[in-house]
Amino acid sequence: MNDLAKLKKDLDGLEVEDNPQIVKQKSRDFFWYSPVLKRQLDHVTADLVVTPKSEEEVIQVLKACFAHDVPVTTRGAGTGNYGQAMPLSGGVVLNLAALNEVLEISPGVVRAQAGAIMAAIDEAARPGGQELRMHPSTYRTATVGGFIAGGSGGVGSINWGGLRDLGNIISLKVATMEAEPRILHMKGEDLHKVSHAYGTNGIILEVEVPLTAAYDWVDVIVGFDEFMDGVHFADALANQDGILTKEIAPVAAPVPHDYFLRHQKYLRKGQSVVLLMVAPFAMDAFLAFASRFRAASICYRSDVGRPEERKGLPPVYELAWNHTTLRGLRVDPTITYLQVLYPFPDYVEKVGRMTRLLGDEVPGHLEFVRFDGKITCFGLPIVRYTSEERLNEIIRLHEDHGCPIFNPHRYTLEEGGMKQTDAVQLAFKREADPKGLLNPGKMIAWEDPDFDFSAQKTYLFPGLAR
Amino acid sequence: MNDLAKLKKDLDGLEVEDNPQIVKQKSRDFFWYSPVLKRQLDHVTADLVVTPKSEEEVIQVLKACFAHDVPVTTRGAGTGNYGQAMPLSGGVVLNLAALNEVLEISPGVVRAQAGAIMAAIDEAARPGGQELRMHPSTYRTATVGGFIAGGSGGVGSINWGGLRDLGNIISLKVATMEAEPRILHMKGEDLHKVSHAYGTNGIILEVEVPLTAAYDWVDVIVGFDEFMDGVHFADALANQDGILTKEIAPVAAPVPHDYFLRHQKYLRKGQSVVLLMVAPFAMDAFLAFASRFRAASICYRSDVGRPEERKGLPPVYELAWNHTTLRGLRVDPTITYLQVLYPFPDYVEKVGRMTRLLGDEVPGHLEFVRFDGKITCFGLPIVRYTSEERLNEIIRLHEDHGCPIFNPHRYTLEEGGMKQTDAVQLAFKREADPKGLLNPGKMIAWEDPDFDFSAQKTYLFPGLAR
Ligand SMILES: Cc1cc2nc3c(=O)[nH]c(=O)nc-3n(C[C@H](O)[C@H](O)[C@H](O)COP(=O)(O)OP(=O)(O)OC[C@H]3O[C@@H](n4cnc5c(N)ncnc54)[C@H](O)[C@@H]3O)c2cc1C
Ligand SMILES: Cc1cc2nc3c(=O)[nH]c(=O)nc-3n(C[C@H](O)[C@H](O)[C@H](O)COP(=O)(O)OP(=O)(O)OC[C@H]3O[C@@H](n4cnc5c(N)ncnc54)[C@H](O)[C@@H]3O)c2cc1C
Repeated sequence: MNDLAKLKKDLDGLEVEDNPQIVKQKSRDFFWYSPVLKRQLDHVTADLVVTPKSEEEVIQVLKACFAHDVPVTTRGAGTGNYGQAMPLSGGVVLNLAALNEVLEISPGVVRAQAGAIMAAIDEAARPGGQELRMHPSTYRTATVGGFIAGGSGGVGSINWGGLRDLGNIISLKVATMEAEPRILHMKGEDLHKVSHAYGTNGIILEVEVPLTAAYDWVDVIVGFDEFMDGVHFADALANQDGILTKEIAPVAAPVPHDYFLRHQKYLRKGQSVVLLMVAPFAMDAFLAFASRFRAASICYRSDVGRPEERKGLPPVYELAWNHTTLRGLRVDPTITYLQVLYPFPDYVEKVGRMTRLLGDEVPGHLEFVRFDGKITCFGLPIVRYTSEERLNEIIRLHEDHGCPIFNPHRYTLEEGGMKQTDAVQLAFKREADPKGLLNPGKMIAWEDPDFDFSAQKTYLFPGLAR
Repeated sequence: MNDLAKLKKDLDGLEVEDNPQIVKQKSRDFFWYSPVLKRQLDHVTADLVVTPKSEEEVIQVLKACFAHDVPVTTRGAGTGNYGQAMPLSGGVVLNLAALNEVLEISPGVVRAQAGAIMAAIDEAARPGGQELRMHPSTYRTATVGGFIAGGSGGVGSINWGGLRDLGNIISLKVATMEAEPRILHMKGEDLHKVSHAYGTNGIILEVEVPLTAAYDWVDVIVGFDEFMDGVHFADALANQDGILTKEIAPVAAPVPHDYFLRHQKYLRKGQSVVLLMVAPFAMDAFLAFASRFRAASICYRSDVGRPEERKGLPPVYELAWNHTTLRGLRVDPTITYLQVLYPFPDYVEKVGRMTRLLGDEVPGHLEFVRFDGKITCFGLPIVRYTSEERLNEIIRLHEDHGCPIFNPHRYTLEEGGMKQTDAVQLAFKREADPKGLLNPGKMIAWEDPDFDFSAQKTYLFPGLAR
């Protein structure tokens, strides 16, 4: 009996899938956004997918895999787009989709199992007038555990900053990967150990996150002839302290008209837009604000007109964040994208400079957020992809102009993030995953402590070599 | 029959008070905070106080006063401290205390009569999990109409900015002072006409203001040996996007120990503090944040310890904003205060400079707020008053160092504010109060269009000359 057969025996009674086609499907995420990752990871697959129904079953899987030295890669909904959830060394995909209960709601707080879908959490919180502070644009499919382990922020970050900020996660219940898995309760400074660690050093079983007031947000699209007019408008609106919004995203022409197909009837070719979610009771103030801008024309608002007309339109947040790129990919599969930070205070100027420099090769898409207490913007620009060399050149151009890139064409924590080892996460991995079985290949510091980040080389996980 | 007698006849059936002692009492506010205003306004009194029970009765008063050319000065709770509500030309004090109904609450919005007490509005909104975005520290006594007509911001401004910001007032219902008073419904850009106009150009009958999520805020006092350590702590906390607070106010020694008598047992002599209101579910994150600061020690928190111990303690917000000065005045009636803006971005540096320059003559008190999208701070420093000359010198020192003063020792809109005429408010006064009967003497632009603001002279309302 080989190890896998023995493992299967130990998993008796659990929901285990070994049909290669289904296993391969559940071993993938949105890595194909990146032509680079597409090339590197396309063949990746697990051996088994296990879908535990309870915490006890999760522990059973961990124990069995530990005993047989089988890697475990946790999966929420598999909507990450850096191959985060892809099992580079095969083994087990631990699918948490069935651990999806919303456990408790109180003023300002929700406690839920890690596999709960974010939209489902809001649905449960809504009757009490509450909703999550922030969510990725994959709101309707992504799990809260996957968001915390693999995401960074999104809709609502204009008010609350990112997941990395103290206070945006209250506590986590985490299982370790040991002979006898421990259950840890983390809060405060400790949260950083496992949040945004791609599940490399623990399995998040339960989360406690803050809620805020829920509203029937109004979707608004404001049109501009010039992208930079839209950027100035967005920046001014983001700095209005009394006008409550949840989303502010300028998108440069030709993206809106050419890629937002279901909204196309509201848009002119060559028009840049700012995508907005505005609190319903803030609409009067918003309209007063908007009328100060000659260049701004309101193309669409979801709070007027006949409901039939709006039928079939996606919510505005599904035009924003990584959905902008997704809509682009559907029309033109040759494009890709980047992730840029335009640091405070001269972020608008930097956007202007990069826009002039790169023109239609890199149409702008910004997401305004709070970042360390200030309004600034991230960029998720579309890139008309020609080659990896040119892509790297575009990355260098940004960095040379003081705009750090969070490279979405890398599957490791370090290369996708701050290009350095997170010492806290690494130290915790030593404690919680001594055999290094959790999501192998994603934390360079673990796999190759001597890796030289300054050498400008891409890390290649040995397990990927075929 | 003189005009007053005729007026009284027209007011038949309304609640009219003419007992000189009571009338004088209802003609005063907290002007005595300022030794300057105390000298100028101490004798001011109306002839009558009228307390209408309905909008119709308000209109009846306005019509009658218009007919007999009698000035009308509106009064909420009379907690303003620039003599805003004091009838410089006598006449009628229009007391709106009885117009205090909370009319309608929906998600994010409350509609109330102008005389509703702010704490009462919150009490009504609470069952739905909502509360006002911001309130003055006179929360338990001040009216919402008085706040909008005479206030600027307060507890909550750390999240929402000030009343002047678009979106912090939704709509106002206003009566004009004409032969046939008109009822106007204002929203958007128009709101600026009557907000913070001291009731000089219209009577606010009803307000619609936004609500936000209500929490059982935790009062926290953090102690520091050095005031500037507290200022840095407060600034860092205010810039934490994920830690929800409602109030952040550093107060320099010796104020806390010497003036906060009921909290004295928690404070050391010579200790500076930061006063805080923290969302209950943010306490873990807050404590993690605070433990990064060696100089910070938590002196008091309202969420631990025995309730008996907390009995009789005022809420922390009643140590802050203008209550800091009030508590000081009770211990030492010779002090007074100033109102300073430390503009972004070098506000902390400016605070440091003024602190070094003025030492214990002007003990610091800051209120962190959002201002045009950035965190910055206002100052309400205590001033150990010696003479008007020295007070003016202290004001000049601030201005010379780039810290504008909003002079609380002036009873006019212009001198207390931006030292220039608000053209929109003036134009609206021409429409809405053609005879100039509303709160005479408070808008220089109306009384003396040629007044030269650059001449450094204090405006003296002729009606005040005895
Ligand atoms: C169209 C599109 C739009 C997107 N928009 C955004 C956005 O606005 N903001 C944003 O931050 N991201 C965004 N993303 C990325 C991704 O959707 C989010 O990060 C999402 O929250 C991931 O959730 P998931 O449940 O799909 O996680 P998965 O993709 O399943 O997992 C993400 C990572 O977390 C690990 N993981 C999952 N669950 C657990 C657990 N319980 N314990 C430990 N580790 C775990 C996985 O191993 C993997 O490394 C977007 C992606 C797409 C395709
Ligand atoms: C201890 C203390 C603390 C304070 N803290 C703060 C603070 O934190 N923030 C702040 O902004 N202020 C503060 N103030 C000032 C004052 O309390 C507030 O502005 C308060 O909101 C005034 O409300 P009121 O009902 O007492 O108004 P009043 O004092 O009665 O009136 C204020 C002004 O508005 C006019 N007015 C009142 N009602 C109407 C109406 N319905 N229509 C037209 N005009 C009207 C009056 O004529 C007057 O000019 C403080 C004052 C004190 C004494």
